[in-house]
Amino acid sequence: MKVGYLGPKATFTELAVKKVFERFEHVPYQTIPGCMDAVSNHDVELAVVPLENALEGSVNITLDYLTQVAELPIIGEITIPIKQHLMVHPQNAESWQDAEKIYSHSHAIAQCHKFLHKHFKGVPYESVSSTAAAAKMIMESPEQNAAAIANELAAKEYGATIVERSIHDFDYNHTRFIVLSEQNIDFQVLSGSSHYRTTLMVTLPSDQAGALHQVLSAFAWRKINLSKIESRPMKTGIGNYFFIIDLEMKLDDVLIPGAIAEMEALGCSVKLLGSYPAIMVDLD
Amino acid sequence: MKVGYLGPKATFTELAVKKVFERFEHVPYQTIPGCMDAVSNHDVELAVVPLENALEGSVNITLDYLTQVAELPIIGEITIPIKQHLMVHPQNAESWQDAEKIYSHSHAIAQCHKFLHKHFKGVPYESVSSTAAAAKMIMESPEQNAAAIANELAAKEYGATIVERSIHDFDYNHTRFIVLSEQNIDFQVLSGSSHYRTTLMVTLPSDQAGALHQVLSAFAWRKINLSKIESRPMKTGIGNYFFIIDLEMKLDDVLIPGAIAEMEALGCSVKLLGSYPAIMVDLD
Repeated sequence: MKVGYLGPKATFTELAVKKVFERFEHVPYQTIPGCMDAVSNHDVELAVVPLENALEGSVNITLDYLTQVAELPIIGEITIPIKQHLMVHPQNAESWQDAEKIYSHSHAIAQCHKFLHKHFKGVPYESVSSTAAAAKMIMESPEQNAAAIANELAAKEYGATIVERSIHDFDYNHTRFIVLSEQNIDFQVLSGSSHYRTTLMVTLPSDQAGALHQVLSAFAWRKINLSKIESRPMKTGIGNYFFIIDLEMKLDDVLIPGAIAEMEALGCSVKLLGSYPAIMVDLD
Repeated sequence: MKVGYLGPKATFTELAVKKVFERFEHVPYQTIPGCMDAVSNHDVELAVVPLENALEGSVNITLDYLTQVAELPIIGEITIPIKQHLMVHPQNAESWQDAEKIYSHSHAIAQCHKFLHKHFKGVPYESVSSTAAAAKMIMESPEQNAAAIANELAAKEYGATIVERSIHDFDYNHTRFIVLSEQNIDFQVLSGSSHYRTTLMVTLPSDQAGALHQVLSAFAWRKINLSKIESRPMKTGIGNYFFIIDLEMKLDDVLIPGAIAEMEALGCSVKLLGSYPAIMVDLD
């Protein structure tokens, strides 16, 4: 079985893929839409793309392409902790504190703001297209005393030496990935997780005060817990929003269908994006 | 007066800054936290950073740094349409359809997925740190027949020739920026906008079914319209969320303070991030 993922190699997305789909073939794609198209075109059976708090891609692109173009079911979710390390070429392992330049993805540089401010004040940094690209870059120019911020996998892949571990500002830093597939694949068996989530896309009838409140009533009186709610603009004009709502339960026969029927009676259109096992992967 | 913005030059953030703060001095910063720190340290009077649907930075970093570290008031909002153009070195203007490589920011490549799929199928693309960097890159190597996806400003700044305009997939593609300042600056005078928005950060007492529904009741019965709601994980552990809520009105003496008092009585903590004029800028 082939698993497409947002590349390049040694990014956080590949980390997630390696943990969960160890024995499958992994195919990197350069963009999130390209990765989803590969599933639609049957080039791969599964795709893994970042959904939330992503480093190497945009959450908005994932949601927009999923809801408005690709229309693939979500069959699973993988959450991994994001740990950023400082690494240099092995030749520069002794003198890393004198590094003259720091390379990384712009988001990773921002995430390590406090560390860089304390240890490398005034040292210029250069943002490159991914953390993996940064690790590759410092390995190609050992004569320059430069450091990269990247993950464990990138250090291994390119042979860089990690000189400071976990240099990110916030301890609790996670990325949430979704697994997309049109095939009948049981992610519960693959992941071993029995914790389910259900994701709905809800479009309100019009931009009216209190419409969202009515929608949430449908969940509240059924005691269905929401783990996330996010409004996203429709691509049709200003002020038109749809909502992505995550429910902390598996799709059942009574409660969720009842809530959907109630929202539809209020004039909403409701689309089930998936009801899937969610796994939290520890990288240590 | 100095205005800090998320650089480099010729990005969409600079486009927004140029439109609204034409006569001020503009100072580019490499990261969103760096840009906010510049305001806290009084290096600049104002800062402009992307908040939503951003190309050159992460929305999550803006929200997280704003709510948990920088604590700067939002004094204004600027929304601009995102228009992506295909550009080449003037030498290659006749032969652009034979371009052998496409450079851009990964998000811009993803946003022009359909165009690239139709006109440049099989042509490799390379993601660089910003759309502006892509434009700069093709201008430095005219001997390579390469194209860049970037904005109007980047074409002007680096002298590239636009060969196809508006190649992005979705017509309605906007980025929303916030203006941060600790000074008493009237953004209404600067922007000429009298359309106000108020942004609140609401932390729920505990992860309970229906808590959000109760919060929204405080707005619904007062007929206060919400234009956006988004849940963000607290950096303290899984399942703890706070909410960013945008209200479509200016902070008044009765309605919003009443809603805040009601939410606090329910055990929520509420923080006012700002009540500010919002301007929609047309780039044409």
